[in-house]
Amino acid sequence: MLDERERQIERRITELKKGAGSHSPSIFSLLSAIPELQITVDACFLSNPYATDLFMKYFQKEVLDTGKLRSLLEYYPTQNRPLASVLSPVLRVPPQNILLGNGAVEIIQALIHRFVKKKMLVVLPTFSPYYEFARPDTEVIFFVLEKTHDFRLDVKAWLRMIDQEKPDTVILINPNNPDGGYLSQQELRDMLSALSPVEQIILDESFIHFAHEDNTYHLISYRELCQEFPHLITVKSMSKDFGVAGIRAGYAIMAEEKVKQLLQNGYLWNISGIAEYFFRLFARSEFQEEYEPLRIRYIQEMQEFYCLLTKISGIKVYPSRSNFFLVELLQREAEEVAMELLIRYGIYIRGCGDKKGLEGNFIRVASRKAEENRLIAQALQQVLN
Amino acid sequence: MLDERERQIERRITELKKGAGSHSPSIFSLLSAIPELQITVDACFLSNPYATDLFMKYFQKEVLDTGKLRSLLEYYPTQNRPLASVLSPVLRVPPQNILLGNGAVEIIQALIHRFVKKKMLVVLPTFSPYYEFARPDTEVIFFVLEKTHDFRLDVKAWLRMIDQEKPDTVILINPNNPDGGYLSQQELRDMLSALSPVEQIILDESFIHFAHEDNTYHLISYRELCQEFPHLITVKSMSKDFGVAGIRAGYAIMAEEKVKQLLQNGYLWNISGIAEYFFRLFARSEFQEEYEPLRIRYIQEMQEFYCLLTKISGIKVYPSRSNFFLVELLQREAEEVAMELLIRYGIYIRGCGDKKGLEGNFIRVASRKAEENRLIAQALQQVLN
Repeated sequence: MLDERERQIERRITELKKGAGSHSPSIFSLLSAIPELQITVDACFLSNPYATDLFMKYFQKEVLDTGKLRSLLEYYPTQNRPLASVLSPVLRVPPQNILLGNGAVEIIQALIHRFVKKKMLVVLPTFSPYYEFARPDTEVIFFVLEKTHDFRLDVKAWLRMIDQEKPDTVILINPNNPDGGYLSQQELRDMLSALSPVEQIILDESFIHFAHEDNTYHLISYRELCQEFPHLITVKSMSKDFGVAGIRAGYAIMAEEKVKQLLQNGYLWNISGIAEYFFRLFARSEFQEEYEPLRIRYIQEMQEFYCLLTKISGIKVYPSRSNFFLVELLQREAEEVAMELLIRYGIYIRGCGDKKGLEGNFIRVASRKAEENRLIAQALQQVLN
Repeated sequence: MLDERERQIERRITELKKGAGSHSPSIFSLLSAIPELQITVDACFLSNPYATDLFMKYFQKEVLDTGKLRSLLEYYPTQNRPLASVLSPVLRVPPQNILLGNGAVEIIQALIHRFVKKKMLVVLPTFSPYYEFARPDTEVIFFVLEKTHDFRLDVKAWLRMIDQEKPDTVILINPNNPDGGYLSQQELRDMLSALSPVEQIILDESFIHFAHEDNTYHLISYRELCQEFPHLITVKSMSKDFGVAGIRAGYAIMAEEKVKQLLQNGYLWNISGIAEYFFRLFARSEFQEEYEPLRIRYIQEMQEFYCLLTKISGIKVYPSRSNFFLVELLQREAEEVAMELLIRYGIYIRGCGDKKGLEGNFIRVASRKAEENRLIAQALQQVLN
């Protein structure tokens, strides 16, 4: 339990959270508002820290050491279409199907505001912008994943609901956030075929770099399916797999007509100079070759972290194919545990009290570097005992 | 006239321009596509280079030297509302009236897509997104500034047009882009009073830091008028006056209800970590105190540049209260002169052949540092002789 000094800090954190809406306040705003907080591990933040190391290595060598930083900050960056051509070879998708965004969330906003007609189906729990961004004239219907089924999507029941409700747009995140539930490549392909009457399917694969179906850990993506299924839109954040959330970089693959429609009256200079550098780097094979073993190492450490977490008593860790674990607290209140972890141990995790469709006491814990994962597990154990 | 080698470069530039739509390709894309180009002065780029120097000095000291860069690139930035509170004291506007944007252009897009009802009035020539971003169901009507009146807005005729056409939205840029025409504080206040039946007035003051009514050069802004005129929306790019276009930072001041409506279903994490650092720096009085003399120095050098340009024969330089000059070529073709300046002298200026509402051979020349301005004037003189 927290003492009086800690209670005071808790009240200030609660205040700050109100300002951040249904998202966690950034570590940046936390630390600038409450400087006496000591954050040891940010396990709220769903990113691969090894990838950040790699990016910083290139950035140091190619931007800082060469004196090129000023030009990235001073000059107007390149527009969307020429950058799409830079990304086309590495994504193996024609440039006219690519839209770059100021974070995936800018594109999610565009899709939901511009392309949803009347009704969309969202699977719960989810990344909240998928329903919060709905226009006032859009009806949002929910398909709720069952805790008793480990949050696995019951594909048949879901397809039945689509058949009955006839939404024009359906949204899937794979692996899903916040539970990490995963649909295999075979399942997804079958679903896409069954979904042909739906006008558009938004498939968010922001966490797909962490998914794995076997221990070859080969990189999975459905973005190339946009050619086969023209109503499929894949959305991809770069913040998670490349650990560069502050840069704001994401993209989506969709029908040429849709890209054209969006660029026709918007999205000018929406990619900053630093994000442009990142995208150009991402497109280079030497970077991809260095990144790949770091991606696999991170997945393997995630799996070790899962084992560590499952040994802690008083919790249930749900199966995940992503870089975070949804953890149910069987005897304690979630926000209370989150606060104690943060204030006393400097471990920042996400309490899921505000996650729609999630009944019970849940926290979401991101996997970080192996040594940080050990600190998270230790602190959680101590708080719960 | 260009020789064969130069002609080849010209063809590649023309190709690149197609990809950039109605905006100039960035110096970045120019140089990466055509490495044999040597750009000495980017006089296409409308920014205060002394302000960039100042920003870089702070960035070096506070971000690079302290090792804080990684956290700006790695972590999620702060959301719009808490950042609005940071800006509120320096803007002297309540936080609930402030929206921060990924560049002013993101906000321009939001305003035109979300708040224009059926009909909007745009003054020509203008910054093209003001009409290009119109929704397909919006009627855009134009009020064309007359060359014979030095592109000064005929306020009476403009008010008459509003009275007849009854647009729900009117757009003004002050000083105007690309001619630098300026409406005084008294004129603007009178117009705002006369415009009360219009639902909203979008006033873009992205170049207002360069405006001046006398040689005290005091900083002018109309943003505080949003309290007095609730239908007024002021838009502000930070790229020009602070010389940080690559960072993508802008804001707008508007009725609380409008900010609420936009943030309710969008604009999550739209400010990058670097832009957040910039906004927090901008809000500090020590930065403002160092910036102010650089702003005035830049205006004074702009005025000297105007004198230099007016001495060149074969051109007419239109009066401007901003950091650029609209120059009419009386005997030569504009794109031809722009190409020769770029390819032979490394001087990048903007040909205005694609500017709607501008009949004749016009180029737009930005004012840079004094020594660069001399290079621009010299090269222009040589090309024209």
